[in-house]
Amino acid sequence: MMLNQKRIRDYGIKVGAMEPGDLNSITDIEGVRVGHVTICDGDAQTGVTAILPHQGNIYQQKLLAATHIINGFGKSMGLMQIDEMGVIETPILLSNTLSIGVASDALIEYMLEHNNDIGTTTGTVNPLVFECNDSYLNDIRAAHVTKENIFEALNSTEQTFSEGAVGAGRGMSCYKLKGGIGTASRRFMIDESEGLLGALVMTNMGQKHDFIIDGKNIGKAISLVDGEDPKPDTGSIIIILATDVALSERQLKRVAKRATVGLSRTGSFIGSGSGEVVLAFTTKNSVSHYKSEEIENISRTHEDDLDTLFRAAAESVEEAILNSMISAESITGVNGNTRKSLQEYMQLLKP
Amino acid sequence: MMLNQKRIRDYGIKVGAMEPGDLNSITDIEGVRVGHVTICDGDAQTGVTAILPHQGNIYQQKLLAATHIINGFGKSMGLMQIDEMGVIETPILLSNTLSIGVASDALIEYMLEHNNDIGTTTGTVNPLVFECNDSYLNDIRAAHVTKENIFEALNSTEQTFSEGAVGAGRGMSCYKLKGGIGTASRRFMIDESEGLLGALVMTNMGQKHDFIIDGKNIGKAISLVDGEDPKPDTGSIIIILATDVALSERQLKRVAKRATVGLSRTGSFIGSGSGEVVLAFTTKNSVSHYKSEEIENISRTHEDDLDTLFRAAAESVEEAILNSMISAESITGVNGNTRKSLQEYMQLLKP
Amino acid sequence: MMLNQKRIRDYGIKVGAMEPGDLNSITDIEGVRVGHVTICDGDAQTGVTAILPHQGNIYQQKLLAATHIINGFGKSMGLMQIDEMGVIETPILLSNTLSIGVASDALIEYMLEHNNDIGTTTGTVNPLVFECNDSYLNDIRAAHVTKENIFEALNSTEQTFSEGAVGAGRGMSCYKLKGGIGTASRRFMIDESEGLLGALVMTNMGQKHDFIIDGKNIGKAISLVDGEDPKPDTGSIIIILATDVALSERQLKRVAKRATVGLSRTGSFIGSGSGEVVLAFTTKNSVSHYKSEEIENISRTHEDDLDTLFRAAAESVEEAILNSMISAESITGVNGNTRKSLQEYMQLLKP
Amino acid sequence: MMLNQKRIRDYGIKVGAMEPGDLNSITDIEGVRVGHVTICDGDAQTGVTAILPHQGNIYQQKLLAATHIINGFGKSMGLMQIDEMGVIETPILLSNTLSIGVASDALIEYMLEHNNDIGTTTGTVNPLVFECNDSYLNDIRAAHVTKENIFEALNSTEQTFSEGAVGAGRGMSCYKLKGGIGTASRRFMIDESEGLLGALVMTNMGQKHDFIIDGKNIGKAISLVDGEDPKPDTGSIIIILATDVALSERQLKRVAKRATVGLSRTGSFIGSGSGEVVLAFTTKNSVSHYKSEEIENISRTHEDDLDTLFRAAAESVEEAILNSMISAESITGVNGNTRKSLQEYMQLLKP
Repeated sequence: MMLNQKRIRDYGIKVGAMEPGDLNSITDIEGVRVGHVTICDGDAQTGVTAILPHQGNIYQQKLLAATHIINGFGKSMGLMQIDEMGVIETPILLSNTLSIGVASDALIEYMLEHNNDIGTTTGTVNPLVFECNDSYLNDIRAAHVTKENIFEALNSTEQTFSEGAVGAGRGMSCYKLKGGIGTASRRFMIDESEGLLGALVMTNMGQKHDFIIDGKNIGKAISLVDGEDPKPDTGSIIIILATDVALSERQLKRVAKRATVGLSRTGSFIGSGSGEVVLAFTTKNSVSHYKSEEIENISRTHEDDLDTLFRAAAESVEEAILNSMISAESITGVNGNTRKSLQEYMQLLKP
Repeated sequence: MMLNQKRIRDYGIKVGAMEPGDLNSITDIEGVRVGHVTICDGDAQTGVTAILPHQGNIYQQKLLAATHIINGFGKSMGLMQIDEMGVIETPILLSNTLSIGVASDALIEYMLEHNNDIGTTTGTVNPLVFECNDSYLNDIRAAHVTKENIFEALNSTEQTFSEGAVGAGRGMSCYKLKGGIGTASRRFMIDESEGLLGALVMTNMGQKHDFIIDGKNIGKAISLVDGEDPKPDTGSIIIILATDVALSERQLKRVAKRATVGLSRTGSFIGSGSGEVVLAFTTKNSVSHYKSEEIENISRTHEDDLDTLFRAAAESVEEAILNSMISAESITGVNGNTRKSLQEYMQLLKP
Repeated sequence: MMLNQKRIRDYGIKVGAMEPGDLNSITDIEGVRVGHVTICDGDAQTGVTAILPHQGNIYQQKLLAATHIINGFGKSMGLMQIDEMGVIETPILLSNTLSIGVASDALIEYMLEHNNDIGTTTGTVNPLVFECNDSYLNDIRAAHVTKENIFEALNSTEQTFSEGAVGAGRGMSCYKLKGGIGTASRRFMIDESEGLLGALVMTNMGQKHDFIIDGKNIGKAISLVDGEDPKPDTGSIIIILATDVALSERQLKRVAKRATVGLSRTGSFIGSGSGEVVLAFTTKNSVSHYKSEEIENISRTHEDDLDTLFRAAAESVEEAILNSMISAESITGVNGNTRKSLQEYMQLLKP
Repeated sequence: MMLNQKRIRDYGIKVGAMEPGDLNSITDIEGVRVGHVTICDGDAQTGVTAILPHQGNIYQQKLLAATHIINGFGKSMGLMQIDEMGVIETPILLSNTLSIGVASDALIEYMLEHNNDIGTTTGTVNPLVFECNDSYLNDIRAAHVTKENIFEALNSTEQTFSEGAVGAGRGMSCYKLKGGIGTASRRFMIDESEGLLGALVMTNMGQKHDFIIDGKNIGKAISLVDGEDPKPDTGSIIIILATDVALSERQLKRVAKRATVGLSRTGSFIGSGSGEVVLAFTTKNSVSHYKSEEIENISRTHEDDLDTLFRAAAESVEEAILNSMISAESITGVNGNTRKSLQEYMQLLKP
């Protein structure tokens, strides 16, 4: 977004009714940072995206978190322990499906380097790695992602970052057009307090003719122009939600479930072979790894006020998906396969 | 539908790309029948809707089934055992929230009457009762629903039945307009075989300004004309899916999850106080209560073909919600509260 | 216990390593009260047990709670909303399987009487009713439990109460001996603070030859004396856990899961037809129905200290099961069926 | 077992009432094979254990499977997709917690080598890797497990294999004694058909004083002799169940849940920091990766007969845990830490 990329709002599309944050990005939430390593060299069209949940030591100060599995055809790692313990304790990595091994191995090494106690005086660590299958554009069998790529992504996170065909999104397809990384955020009031919620998505799902922008089924028009793509929806979408609102892990799971609303409104029917996973965390509630006091205090928002967060989650996810597409250029990768940019079709939206 | 009621297709709205079944109703699935008892007398605006899953003895020949909880703020009964055992063994009842006790009591009595073995030579029975809170139009504290009402609904099921402000839908509100009971179905081919999937919904959720028809946010226009309703979304929707396709209980759960897609496309953000529950069953796979053979055979569709079912579920739910509204007349109930019919606003859809 | 009943400790059996509370009862937790209505008249051998979670208005001051389903072959009501919202808002009722309708109907009426806002100015209410099938001793089809019985149980709760063949436990069988209602508790220190956890069980599960007391398989000896009962395990057990320790709803679910440990140590293999459900709540964390402040504060114990709670839960459940049996007299009910008291077999434990 | 190792039956301990299979091993189930690579060199006390679910191409012929998470404090990989799709499609790897990255990376490479279609003409693959934390005896930070170790384990599977301090079990502790790999099986009749169920466990959980053998709390006696170990239960246990009985994935999940019964009977209270995960699969029902026919047929056992499998699962797990301990020799590893063999304490069992 910040690199002179066009975003969906630049086309006059305003998703929903709420206002975005300053950057309209997951990094509007204080402390959240994103870094990419993009690999683009002929058949190699892939990469890594890293998200830091806060600027401190995430292992020592874990954040309350929850997951929601929209469709479990996926290989993302670390979800079981989040469900049990209600916290995240590492940065979040995104990459291609067959790189989850090397990514988790590198993330473990990174965590050991930053925490001398892991595996010696304290327990182990739960690495968080999410994935989509980019094999349409990327020679995924060739294992192009290295541990060094992972370290570089972890060490290059910023508040401003690119969207589209970058990082782990490099080889991804969305509605059979070019997908990738997208983000959006919402700012809102709960009583007297301002809150922020942001989404980052890695988009790799959907059938071309189903694609919807702001209620309009542009996918049908694109299919008429370009032909349908007969292959089924075997993609996946990864959705990361961050907020600075006081929520419990149960409430975060409730927020995470509303990601499906935003996803549905872009046209997806949640294909059988599409792994669709949501992670939501709050920077407001942290838990110390080492017990500092007997009783911890968790602040949370009254359940009656959650509707605001639900709406923010749905709107942010819908807009982040559109941003992931509109900011991506057309890419040709392995086997000469091509995914065209949504930019080429935006005129079809006009009446 | 069958009583000269207008349905959403009569307004030229065709939801999705698939063809409906003959009746565009859950009763397109062979053996499925629906009956209503409607109570409408001043402050009493409520009722009962009963669904028979097949025409035989459902306790003796149970049907494979699964549930999906979109938002668990609800009191529906019988879900736990479906998750464990993968079958339904009673008719399905819908009523108002505070009538679940009397409804389950009546359903138990009905089951005992039809099955002498229950509670004597065999085990007990798992009654299925679903509910929404109709207290905006109905004096729900007065407990207007009687056991006799339940028996009557169970004994008056037909293939053709009314939609809208009837049966359990009598007092329901949807997007702060009049909601109620709606249905729709889809017919499709999987390889050489024809299949059917139908949805029946009881709609009682949503904020007025969010309401969407076919991608168009008509709710905003209605709010401009009529004013917004400031109260939060504390409604609920019950979604029943029936199919004649060979599915396992795991596959039925996957189908049930796609109801969220259809719901989202009508504008809901799935409010915190809205109990949203899906039940899906297939008439193709039945299981005998008494063991007749050591090994049972369950037929199921290859996972690659489920996308057709997913699309059918999403489309049927979206259309059933719209049918529940367009077929409902305006109603004034308790405290002089009124919900207007969607029919009064359809002209706002025109450009 | 308090009515000169023998308990398992009176036989020198000390389950586990922790100390019990003053009463060795779920009512050791401040505010928790239990009431029974016992119906015993020929073929009618059944009843109702009511548990008040605290002495105030539970709808206005809800308690944090969680459930765990060990085996979902059961009809207990109210679990879905606990999972979603993390609180209980009514007293807890136990009765026989076919009385859940009348029990929930009565509980709704009771709640309406105590809360004028339900169904008018606020939402509805989520009644909690748990059940086991007592048809071996009780003519369950005859529907002996009335709404008046429910009200009486709700209105007669005390800190001291009977165990064994009383209340909802009147007609229950455990390991094919007489089962019923049992309780136990544990007192412990977490750092400087004293905590209490208590269990109340309604026991109706198990095969005779599997029965274990304190590691010794007394069931085999009983079967040798009395013959095996060839019928399968189709019973159920309901387990209610209460504590005064600061726990979140996620932590309460973790505690609830340890009930299985106590259950397993009495010999059960968790039969296919046995509905086994756990509810855990804490009196330490309450949530107001009406929002009084924007941000709520929930206190919780550091995860490292939960092991103490887990052990207390497992020990309390194991001892409560044994108490439910040893305190029950032999009963003959419908069809002349008899369940003998464990008291008659205790001498078989001696070497 | 097969290498002249002593097993728990050699001490006259017969767990439960059912008969074991020929080898009393998970490899009694036709086609199941187990291979170890053991790393034991000073501070390096770790390894890999591989399980082949059948002798064909598991990616092409997937087996029906289910998981159960007893306590989700763990990092095991691949569970999400099993829950969604109901099948396993790779061999099963066990290793130490910090080796899951390298293990999954190697397993992906192994799968690519055996399946040219993965990542090109078909989708990706869901690697199954399970782990426990062996850092008490093993210098886990040093990452001793290599990809070559994994390949070797995958390529050296046999029907006969060692138990105890071998393979991934090399550095594991159980009840603060030496743990490791153990197995056991049960043979039974369902009507006229013989069935087999086997368990393989990797044991790394428990407090010393809790340890129970066959109902007798030997752990207390061991603690009196040797002193208690004050550290909490932060171990984990991995439980793999295989059967040749016709079961659906829902039924397999029900079987998996009974592993807790066997675990509980060895004394564990399921510690907060102990990751306890069960995987169950059947060799009877396989599903083709490529659709060969429109409708698949799954055979399953009548629900009434599942109790036999539940008992077999509980007994096998209990005995496998004891075998993992009794067959393990005493080991001294990193920091001079030592875990003694259970063999040294068996005389404490005598009265």
